[in-house]
Amino acid sequence: MLVLTQGDPAGIGPEITVKAWQALRESGPAFVFLGDPALLETEAPVRVLGNIHEARTVFRDAIPVLPLSLAVPVTPGAPDSRNAGSVIDSITQAVRLVQAGEASAVVTNPISKDVVKQAGFTHPGHTGYLAELCGVPGQDVMMLAGPSLKVVPVTVHVALRKAIEQLTPELIIRTARTTVQGLKRDFGLTNPRVAVAGLNPHAGEGGLMGREELDCIIPAIRTLQDEGMTIFGPLPPDTMFTPDARARYDVALCMYHDQGLIPLKTLDMAEGVNITLGLPIIRTSPDHGTAFDIAGTGKADPSSLLAALRLAAELAENRRKAS
Amino acid sequence: MLVLTQGDPAGIGPEITVKAWQALRESGPAFVFLGDPALLETEAPVRVLGNIHEARTVFRDAIPVLPLSLAVPVTPGAPDSRNAGSVIDSITQAVRLVQAGEASAVVTNPISKDVVKQAGFTHPGHTGYLAELCGVPGQDVMMLAGPSLKVVPVTVHVALRKAIEQLTPELIIRTARTTVQGLKRDFGLTNPRVAVAGLNPHAGEGGLMGREELDCIIPAIRTLQDEGMTIFGPLPPDTMFTPDARARYDVALCMYHDQGLIPLKTLDMAEGVNITLGLPIIRTSPDHGTAFDIAGTGKADPSSLLAALRLAAELAENRRKAS
Repeated sequence: MLVLTQGDPAGIGPEITVKAWQALRESGPAFVFLGDPALLETEAPVRVLGNIHEARTVFRDAIPVLPLSLAVPVTPGAPDSRNAGSVIDSITQAVRLVQAGEASAVVTNPISKDVVKQAGFTHPGHTGYLAELCGVPGQDVMMLAGPSLKVVPVTVHVALRKAIEQLTPELIIRTARTTVQGLKRDFGLTNPRVAVAGLNPHAGEGGLMGREELDCIIPAIRTLQDEGMTIFGPLPPDTMFTPDARARYDVALCMYHDQGLIPLKTLDMAEGVNITLGLPIIRTSPDHGTAFDIAGTGKADPSSLLAALRLAAELAENRRKAS
Repeated sequence: MLVLTQGDPAGIGPEITVKAWQALRESGPAFVFLGDPALLETEAPVRVLGNIHEARTVFRDAIPVLPLSLAVPVTPGAPDSRNAGSVIDSITQAVRLVQAGEASAVVTNPISKDVVKQAGFTHPGHTGYLAELCGVPGQDVMMLAGPSLKVVPVTVHVALRKAIEQLTPELIIRTARTTVQGLKRDFGLTNPRVAVAGLNPHAGEGGLMGREELDCIIPAIRTLQDEGMTIFGPLPPDTMFTPDARARYDVALCMYHDQGLIPLKTLDMAEGVNITLGLPIIRTSPDHGTAFDIAGTGKADPSSLLAALRLAAELAENRRKAS
């Protein structure tokens, strides 16, 4: 059983939750929603559970809900930090359910960093908090996966200038190891092939346009090759995402956020899924934000959440089989 | 009549020239090759011209050639700097033919920077030399155009670290103006719509992840809007190349090489064309290099050169109509 968190109740989370249930009620995978039932019940039948074990039999007829209360009523599109406590509780309880073996994976609806920050949440987003709850702070690695491409950015939500400063062989090595472990354990790949992007145009052309390839990326690749990893690069970033190039690797290790996210979203906008590797639990989420601007209009596209739910179920099944 | 330069004779230029002629001999557009006829004549009929005006009637039956001599025999895949003089002459003479009104546009085959550098060529590539020949040094702007997307990188062949340092409102403003002039004059767009990318992830989120948007990009956009340009941004780089987003603009102004070239090559690898804006002449080229590694194998794909020839003819026709 998957646990789906509440996310920001003023965002598109409730709407895509209802749409995802409508799409999955017959076929599965089943999920239980951890949040306020009032967010859903005007749009779909809801069943408040006393116990997560009832969820499977309920799922075909109603959205199973493990209830949480919100502090104040919700206006779609108008987030309220007084509800942040409930948003955070939903994440915490979802992790606890997986840790207790009651659920197989956590799927998170989008939250607003600004809103939870006002409630004293000190993490820049979900993943730092999840890593802390799981007792592995700093071990989280973000992977984005779509039907055409998987990417892992080595540096994430920092200014581009800072991303360049943060690059070290150690960071690349650690990120690559976590990525390969995750692809082996949860994606069922016995020998994942890792393509590493250069940082600079044309991957620096041997130092003519930047030295990070020579000083940082190549040494990291050598170390990982010596460990037996199937890893190659640094590749010129602009030509490594063509169909021919993508056929040669399972994951692209990228040096900064947009180097990975531009090709991923250009190719697989609607169906991209965010997966947190490096955690003892399985966690996926849709690859978009709260979209406050369209919340309550009925226009939200559930494709990414659907992909996140399906992928979480697949990863959980792979892990079950392997154990 | 288009003039096609020789490019590096040891690269794939001769092969794609022959393939392009085979594809275009019936339909046009016609071109004349400015180089050594020996590079082509084993693969296709060649007619050495005394005068460019003979080219049109010849084109259906043979590749029209304005002859240049090479210093030493060519081995495909093994560039020789002793032939660099002929490579450079071809570019120079092609520009002179357009300036004299004898040809309508220059299309350049790929050259190797390393090879021409050894012969004393001081420019980092074609475009700097073309701008100098045309008497407009430093005015050249690189645009890449494919069937799905047009991009203009504000900074080009420099390390990413340097690209960030080079960004100024003045550079963005100058590049945007040249881009819009080119789209109006040669592409027949009466009111080109320009989308401007942010530099940082999520376009900086109001200064949370970098200040270049606030200090540099937004002021440039404001200035250009005040001039009446249809320009907007800065947009989060990762979501601005989806089909929906692309429908809202004619050209994406990008802050660095790979920000523009990753989406362009991911979407339109084979058919991308490089266009130099800001010159008094029309110049296009295929969006790839000399490919010494496959020269002489028969595997070279002429798609990008074909697209460059067709686009050059279209731009020349637009300019003729407008004048």
